[in-house]
Amino acid sequence: MKPKNDTFLRALLKQPVPYTPIWIMRQAGRYLPEYNQTRARAGDFLSLCKNPDLATEVTLQPIARFGLDAAILFSDILTIPDAMGLGLYFAEGEGPKFERPLREEWAIRDLTAPDPDSHLRYVLDAVSQIRRALNNEIPLIGFSGSPFTLACYMVEGGGSDDFRTLKTMLYQRPELLHHILQVNAKAVTDYLNAQIQAGAQAVQIFDTWGGMLSSHAYEKFSLAYLRQVVSGLIRDHDGERVPCIVFTKNGGIWLEKIAAIGCDAVGLDWTCDIGEARKRVGGKISLQGNMDPMVLFSDPAAIRKEVQRILVSYGSGSGHVFNLGHGVSQFTPPENVAALVDAVHELSKAFH
Amino acid sequence: MKPKNDTFLRALLKQPVPYTPIWIMRQAGRYLPEYNQTRARAGDFLSLCKNPDLATEVTLQPIARFGLDAAILFSDILTIPDAMGLGLYFAEGEGPKFERPLREEWAIRDLTAPDPDSHLRYVLDAVSQIRRALNNEIPLIGFSGSPFTLACYMVEGGGSDDFRTLKTMLYQRPELLHHILQVNAKAVTDYLNAQIQAGAQAVQIFDTWGGMLSSHAYEKFSLAYLRQVVSGLIRDHDGERVPCIVFTKNGGIWLEKIAAIGCDAVGLDWTCDIGEARKRVGGKISLQGNMDPMVLFSDPAAIRKEVQRILVSYGSGSGHVFNLGHGVSQFTPPENVAALVDAVHELSKAFH
Repeated sequence: MKPKNDTFLRALLKQPVPYTPIWIMRQAGRYLPEYNQTRARAGDFLSLCKNPDLATEVTLQPIARFGLDAAILFSDILTIPDAMGLGLYFAEGEGPKFERPLREEWAIRDLTAPDPDSHLRYVLDAVSQIRRALNNEIPLIGFSGSPFTLACYMVEGGGSDDFRTLKTMLYQRPELLHHILQVNAKAVTDYLNAQIQAGAQAVQIFDTWGGMLSSHAYEKFSLAYLRQVVSGLIRDHDGERVPCIVFTKNGGIWLEKIAAIGCDAVGLDWTCDIGEARKRVGGKISLQGNMDPMVLFSDPAAIRKEVQRILVSYGSGSGHVFNLGHGVSQFTPPENVAALVDAVHELSKAFH
Repeated sequence: MKPKNDTFLRALLKQPVPYTPIWIMRQAGRYLPEYNQTRARAGDFLSLCKNPDLATEVTLQPIARFGLDAAILFSDILTIPDAMGLGLYFAEGEGPKFERPLREEWAIRDLTAPDPDSHLRYVLDAVSQIRRALNNEIPLIGFSGSPFTLACYMVEGGGSDDFRTLKTMLYQRPELLHHILQVNAKAVTDYLNAQIQAGAQAVQIFDTWGGMLSSHAYEKFSLAYLRQVVSGLIRDHDGERVPCIVFTKNGGIWLEKIAAIGCDAVGLDWTCDIGEARKRVGGKISLQGNMDPMVLFSDPAAIRKEVQRILVSYGSGSGHVFNLGHGVSQFTPPENVAALVDAVHELSKAFH
């Protein structure tokens, strides 16, 4: 059943819309005081992710505050490797870490894709519960990290400035990395399909780290597996098309190639001019983005100016979902997010 | 007078060469034990930069070890703001910092370009001394940070994940940032010209942070000032053409625009396919790059394979200076750098 406000889904499918829809990556996050309160009750970040009641609560917080056109499942991009047994934890102020990074050949050969219905039940429960809570007002987005991005964290054992361990494997033992990516591609496909069956009305794949590869390595180690995931996704569920968005941070240079893997939309970071991007993809797919999150540290007038610049650059017609080019910073003043959402809704009417 | 080995200069000017020349960004650095010994004698990094004898010593170390085709002045990219009185220092393990970040309007209005002959004498002395020590065997590259990259550090007070302070100024008080950039452009032009007059035979401008801007902001806040610097450079000195290389990290998406500002060559990071880049610039300028520095953590066979892939991608003919797409990592095994230099020299002959 279509949600009452289906502008987000329609824009992804290039159907006419009365205004440009907007959601914001990491919209349920630390810049919201109510989020921090819920998180404090949960104890820590991972407990928040794993508790469907609390995950539902934080998913809805930005919806209640701002007139956003989509909700996104509150979860972490590393739930899959956690379900694989790598032992995800968050060291205070340090980002995600794994207790058992994936480096030994025997461990890599032993790796298997988790069954979402058992090992990732808490995520599917959150999806169902959020859908009920949304009461069909706006659509819910499911998501996953990309096979390559998951592999980065799995091999490196956490974030990194240069992903040296991962890249050493890539150049020295490419067959081992391909094995991991093959397992990850199956895991991501199964996971997203389970989210769709639980009620996700669109899905986004976050390829956070693909953009640090050489062009050649990107095609072989990230894009090939993104293509595999996209081609394995359930695309119609409950009588509706389920659009799929692929977002490779820093991937603007490869836009034509990403647009050709079968997704409905490509997410853009802010380094790419969205009007040029629209020309480059020949209007064949939709585009999502692409304001610099740092604009939100200025003021409503400057935000409005930048929104207008992006809307003018994209031009008239459907096929644009407004978003930031990266997750919203934890230091962002929430009132500037309100100014952004209002500016997009108001100014975009002239383009439809 | 031409150096005995002038392949680097010839490649930048697209003149025939017997093989593809190579130098390596940060080739005099912490991955070399002899560098660490000299640095220990100097006491700290800044004292090393400011002592022409020691700067000459470390500049020559990678030349003695590897058959590189160019030397690059050993210095820091933040000498200009230091000469402006911002108080550059290096907190152990933290990167560069300024004691007096540039944030107040009165301080910005007071900013002036330093006279290189007085305030940056130590750099010019190092250039002259290195030229004498090189004995005209290979050319010497001078360099500077770009106006925008200098401004990033000056306003932020050091490195940053998101350059939030700088970007807030960019969106909220653009006229203040333009004032800084105007002063920086004059300072960089004067500084590079002084290096050329002291003996630098080519110059490179490092736009390390331009690539984190939106396409629109990049053109206004970085590229416009790069153009201003390039157009103010001495291009003939001592009877020889002085080529100029512009390197915007993460700037591959704007390649055509960078290529059009009047430089002889554009530096590429590894995210860009160098063969596609050559087509995009229509062979009008030379290209420098673009191997991922992380390849140097594999082994000689894998390094050789990646060198060959890049050479094949660029194709036959002059106009390519081999380099990494970023500075060499401090953890790199020096023997792998030797393998890289040898592979480039040996394998590239077939392309000339």
